[in-house]
Amino acid sequence: MDRDDTILLAHGGGGSLTQELIEKLLLPAFGNDVLLALDDSACLTDLPSDHELAFTTDSYVVSPYRFPGGDIGRLAVSGTVNDLAMVGATPAQLSCGLILEEGLPIADLKAIVQSMAETAQEAHVTIVTGDTKVVPKGNGDGIYINTSGIGWIPRGRRISVHSVQPGDAILVTGTMGDHGTTILACRENLGLTSDLRSDVAPLAGLATALQESGVEVHGMRDPTRGGLAQTLCEIAARQSVRMDISQDDIPVRPSVEAICDLLGLDTLQVANEGKFVAFVPKEQAEIAWTALRKHPLGLDAAIIGEVNAGRPSVVLHTSTGGARLVEPPTGELLPRIC
Amino acid sequence: MDRDDTILLAHGGGGSLTQELIEKLLLPAFGNDVLLALDDSACLTDLPSDHELAFTTDSYVVSPYRFPGGDIGRLAVSGTVNDLAMVGATPAQLSCGLILEEGLPIADLKAIVQSMAETAQEAHVTIVTGDTKVVPKGNGDGIYINTSGIGWIPRGRRISVHSVQPGDAILVTGTMGDHGTTILACRENLGLTSDLRSDVAPLAGLATALQESGVEVHGMRDPTRGGLAQTLCEIAARQSVRMDISQDDIPVRPSVEAICDLLGLDTLQVANEGKFVAFVPKEQAEIAWTALRKHPLGLDAAIIGEVNAGRPSVVLHTSTGGARLVEPPTGELLPRIC
Repeated sequence: MDRDDTILLAHGGGGSLTQELIEKLLLPAFGNDVLLALDDSACLTDLPSDHELAFTTDSYVVSPYRFPGGDIGRLAVSGTVNDLAMVGATPAQLSCGLILEEGLPIADLKAIVQSMAETAQEAHVTIVTGDTKVVPKGNGDGIYINTSGIGWIPRGRRISVHSVQPGDAILVTGTMGDHGTTILACRENLGLTSDLRSDVAPLAGLATALQESGVEVHGMRDPTRGGLAQTLCEIAARQSVRMDISQDDIPVRPSVEAICDLLGLDTLQVANEGKFVAFVPKEQAEIAWTALRKHPLGLDAAIIGEVNAGRPSVVLHTSTGGARLVEPPTGELLPRIC
Repeated sequence: MDRDDTILLAHGGGGSLTQELIEKLLLPAFGNDVLLALDDSACLTDLPSDHELAFTTDSYVVSPYRFPGGDIGRLAVSGTVNDLAMVGATPAQLSCGLILEEGLPIADLKAIVQSMAETAQEAHVTIVTGDTKVVPKGNGDGIYINTSGIGWIPRGRRISVHSVQPGDAILVTGTMGDHGTTILACRENLGLTSDLRSDVAPLAGLATALQESGVEVHGMRDPTRGGLAQTLCEIAARQSVRMDISQDDIPVRPSVEAICDLLGLDTLQVANEGKFVAFVPKEQAEIAWTALRKHPLGLDAAIIGEVNAGRPSVVLHTSTGGARLVEPPTGELLPRIC
């Protein structure tokens, strides 16, 4: 495969070019004993006893597939690792399903696969099974990736937002809106300022740090599509609680705020890919905050509000002393944000 | 959602339309307690002890997405169930990752989801986690589906084609080439004969029937992309064995043979989605054959040849007494066959 080669339909045909793609590009990047067996399924033998099994899936269709701070490969590994981490699981193995468009430069595929491999290493997971399909030019857009993942939860340690309740403090692990704003700025050619970059990162280590701080975690969720607004509104509705959050306490980068102002976007509705929201009893909020801030991915963590009894709603207390209802996004702000 | 509605970008935005799609269309079809928890990951608590875990993934991009004998939904469930069954696992849970193209009729989506639900029931698996993305018109082609799956293998009962060896008989569980030929005939508007239909089906029950017959199964594989030719050549190369197969013993429907002749295709290179190849010690071949034939999906099972020592190759002994080397397909016969 030369540097200038592109993906052909035959790379997805199951024949010799598919084999070449697997052997020369995918296996060297992901290589591990389970994957290398190349059977129809990965077989996992060393299973922890007395654990529950977490299982999740996500497809990634972000456009553009490379952006400041990451690419679709880093996103695909991080997003699925994060879904596992949010229920209290230690992420273990991922699958990798590629849908490639005919004409994709092989150099781009190689870079994306390399990025997946590096992010997997960072997140202590292995990619143990995969699949590659190729669609004709005009039936895709470069590359779509599905990752599914499994992880293990010590029995009785599962975390679910079903435990969120009045008396909880609401924390975020860092600045809001970085990913979505970066993608949008890329697409609109807004001319990026130097610190505008996606926050995409695997969060299992940060989630573990929070759990090991000894606080009782009542819920964690990563505010991706629809942003913090969608996440909080969804949980408020499901748990029939009111959430009060303080605008001044929500960390937002000035560059992100500037772009959102320019485009008339609500920062709270913009996707994040390297942050989570956590709910802990109010009296343990400081301990949780300190634990998060000690981790490199939680340096900007903040306590942003609290859960109260009341009509299901999310109320933002503004800098000027006002209050407004936070709404989930209704239309499609940003197609193909993740 | 009216009958004439189509998928909008906002159905993938993570907001209220995404919720509506999940609540009105996906949950009613797939509904089970694990899925209904709607956490970031499915949490599975009743895990069998003393088992290995099988994990696999496949994306499905077949065109057209409805075809005689099935649709992309039945294919997506069957294909992943079959990959689990081929290593000796009992398929347990699947994920469902949808990539929808803006403009897809919601009635079509509903039919496909219903087909997934019915096939899952037939295969005794549950769909416990999912994800929906929408891509703009022109960046997809109706619907692509990824299913990943997990299943359980009693410890020590894993099946791998690494055990295929000289002295094995080669069986197929039924007629070859039905799926690929049907898809091609659809696309070329060849005018379908009444019995030309895809064989797409979940094979876990048939695989179990074979294992429970008491024979020592040295390998199973479903000959999908690249057909029987690809499957046998791949295993012959990996195990450094020669395989001798007899043309007269390979079951092929006359309608399939006719279309392949018409289009200059080699039936052995055409995809199957409801058949598998099995390797068992020659002296147990009759027992295996009888066990397969007792199952509704194995009525046309046949012993087609044997594994011998020799230069890695697959030799087809023809009806006229000749012999030719079977080659894996090199180019792309049929893009988007699965």
